[in-house]
Amino acid sequence: MALIVQKFGGTSVGSVERIANVAARVARFRERGDDVVVVVSAMSGETNRLLALGRDVAGQGEPAPREMDALVATGEQVASALLAIALGVRGVPARSLLGHQIRLRTDAAHTKARIRTIDDEPLREVLDAGQVAVVAGFQGIDEHGNITTLGRGGSDTTAVALAAALAADLCEIYTDVEGVFTTDPRICPSARKVPKISYEEMLELASLGAKVLQIRSVEMAMKHGVKVHVRSSFTDAEGTLVTKEDESLEAIVVAGVALDRDVAKVTLRGVADEPGLAATLFEALADAHVVVDMIIQNVSADGRTDLTFTVSRGDAETARPIAEKALGEQKRGDVIVDASPAKVSIVGLGMRSHAGVAAKMFRLLAVAGINIEAISTSEIKVSCLISEAHGAEAVRALHEGFGLADPA
Amino acid sequence: MALIVQKFGGTSVGSVERIANVAARVARFRERGDDVVVVVSAMSGETNRLLALGRDVAGQGEPAPREMDALVATGEQVASALLAIALGVRGVPARSLLGHQIRLRTDAAHTKARIRTIDDEPLREVLDAGQVAVVAGFQGIDEHGNITTLGRGGSDTTAVALAAALAADLCEIYTDVEGVFTTDPRICPSARKVPKISYEEMLELASLGAKVLQIRSVEMAMKHGVKVHVRSSFTDAEGTLVTKEDESLEAIVVAGVALDRDVAKVTLRGVADEPGLAATLFEALADAHVVVDMIIQNVSADGRTDLTFTVSRGDAETARPIAEKALGEQKRGDVIVDASPAKVSIVGLGMRSHAGVAAKMFRLLAVAGINIEAISTSEIKVSCLISEAHGAEAVRALHEGFGLADPA
Repeated sequence: MALIVQKFGGTSVGSVERIANVAARVARFRERGDDVVVVVSAMSGETNRLLALGRDVAGQGEPAPREMDALVATGEQVASALLAIALGVRGVPARSLLGHQIRLRTDAAHTKARIRTIDDEPLREVLDAGQVAVVAGFQGIDEHGNITTLGRGGSDTTAVALAAALAADLCEIYTDVEGVFTTDPRICPSARKVPKISYEEMLELASLGAKVLQIRSVEMAMKHGVKVHVRSSFTDAEGTLVTKEDESLEAIVVAGVALDRDVAKVTLRGVADEPGLAATLFEALADAHVVVDMIIQNVSADGRTDLTFTVSRGDAETARPIAEKALGEQKRGDVIVDASPAKVSIVGLGMRSHAGVAAKMFRLLAVAGINIEAISTSEIKVSCLISEAHGAEAVRALHEGFGLADPA
Repeated sequence: MALIVQKFGGTSVGSVERIANVAARVARFRERGDDVVVVVSAMSGETNRLLALGRDVAGQGEPAPREMDALVATGEQVASALLAIALGVRGVPARSLLGHQIRLRTDAAHTKARIRTIDDEPLREVLDAGQVAVVAGFQGIDEHGNITTLGRGGSDTTAVALAAALAADLCEIYTDVEGVFTTDPRICPSARKVPKISYEEMLELASLGAKVLQIRSVEMAMKHGVKVHVRSSFTDAEGTLVTKEDESLEAIVVAGVALDRDVAKVTLRGVADEPGLAATLFEALADAHVVVDMIIQNVSADGRTDLTFTVSRGDAETARPIAEKALGEQKRGDVIVDASPAKVSIVGLGMRSHAGVAAKMFRLLAVAGINIEAISTSEIKVSCLISEAHGAEAVRALHEGFGLADPA
């Protein structure tokens, strides 16, 4: 008997039949005596339908973020009510719960709010009454009771946050893939499912375009020590356990290879190498809600240097005038935007103690004839910007070169 | 400058274009300086879509009413957010508000809850900030914060309740008809729009099948003295003002003719004329949530009598075994269910002081060769059960006979 949080994504609740399958699965856990909190996303396609409706109504204008949140939050509300109905008719008592009902408080940053507090009492009451709590994911309320949403994939974060608040034994994330793979199986047929991965590695993989788990949910799981099991809602196979690193993990140098195609590169050429410009630039980008990924600046030669950063392609044209304005203040240099690169990365805890991993990566890419445009490293990852045309090739070369195709 | 509550029904917000029209209309009221609270229904078709989804998921089972409420309440949430967006992009600051945000408290009778209290403060705050409050109609919360709904047409009740709570100058109900008519124009081409009608008459008309306003909204308007203007959202023409009776109303004997085709007649023949049976019968019907309309029992001849009541056709087969059981206890008599009659009624405050109105009605029907199966009267209405085949003919005969076709 355990307390388990289970999150089901949009495809898992995408039709009446699939909702029935989810209900049957939840019922099995109840039968063996577990307490179950379920978190659901909107039925697949629903969030996009609602967003399109909101934009249609806004026409040429900009829809108010507060209202877009109130609008799209209905998707999860519908899914949670439907699952509670499906459980009820199977004889499993269940209650749907919305953000305001579990008092899931967030900040007021509409469309990308962050969780501040969760009141576990409403959930405990439901569990104590022998019911399954079916929580609408992705949504919360700010301190004034306005509906907020947590951004794309926010239901993962809801699930992990609830697991943390309830000190749950396990947080299961049911999705349409079987777990975390060493790389994208569509790009590299020899990709393997990883039975176990550390928070740190998962974090790097999540932020590198392996879209299995929302990155903030992994951060939260790591912070609160929530064991996360990523698995398929269509099979009973074990997926990937995301947990604290242990000895068995240490042996693996590179855990996975990730490819991110949604990259635009902005280069400021001839930047005066003096204090303040970088701060001004990145503050202005943050104010414009542009999320900056890599930042690369080399040492200067003649008091001038080049500063490169990457953003998602959708943000490239927002970033350009901001970069130009930053450069404009020094009345020199120019801005080059390149929306064609891809980012290939290797991730692994073992890098910390194994020298030469980065060098081996550069060699493998060189042997494959792939030019590296920029490099950025962290303690457990190395990322290279390359031409998008070579993306798949680079993944295969690295996956094979680091021996990921062989069973660990 | 006035405080106006405006309610827009499902057809009025049924498409992106229509939402734009509603926004333009609301904007005009703001421009002339009015404070505006808007109440919206779900986009047309949406409530039925959600109900069907809930029933599909329930399959053979009975969906939990609590969850059906959480499900269908999303329809109004979507409409209110969309209208707030449409107002915002037109430069009219607006906020959508849900049942829990305006603390519209109801009892816990899911799918047909009744309003208990409304906290006017959240609405005042929005109005004081110079914003339009766009309230999701039809929904509230019970004392535990569960979402409840007010039953079909509940948005009318929301609008009138808000107008009462805010002591608004006027409550406008925008709908797809131009106002209240002397009878159904589809049945009787000479039907006229009534410029003004009393609460009492509207109440009788609403409960008699003239589905312009939800009956509870009229009760509430009468109780709190809310002036209600029923009008079309597709034209600027004046509609019908529903208000307290005054001298000008008194002159009209019959204000309207209504036809209700959704009638089933249940007759218990040979009922022992002794105390208790009627009480037992109608208590059992109420317990089964069968709404009884007319009740007709004549004086008994030999200690036995016939008892007739009418219900909506959908309830006829629920009512039959209850009636049989009530009769069964006295081991005599039989139950006859007739799902074919229609009910034609005349309504008018003037009846109170004008003798012979009922007699004139019976004569008009007799001249038209229409047989009367049962009669029921109140202070301001007379209803006759007739065969449904004669329904339209009866309406035309009464409409003409009482001079309703002539301008008042």
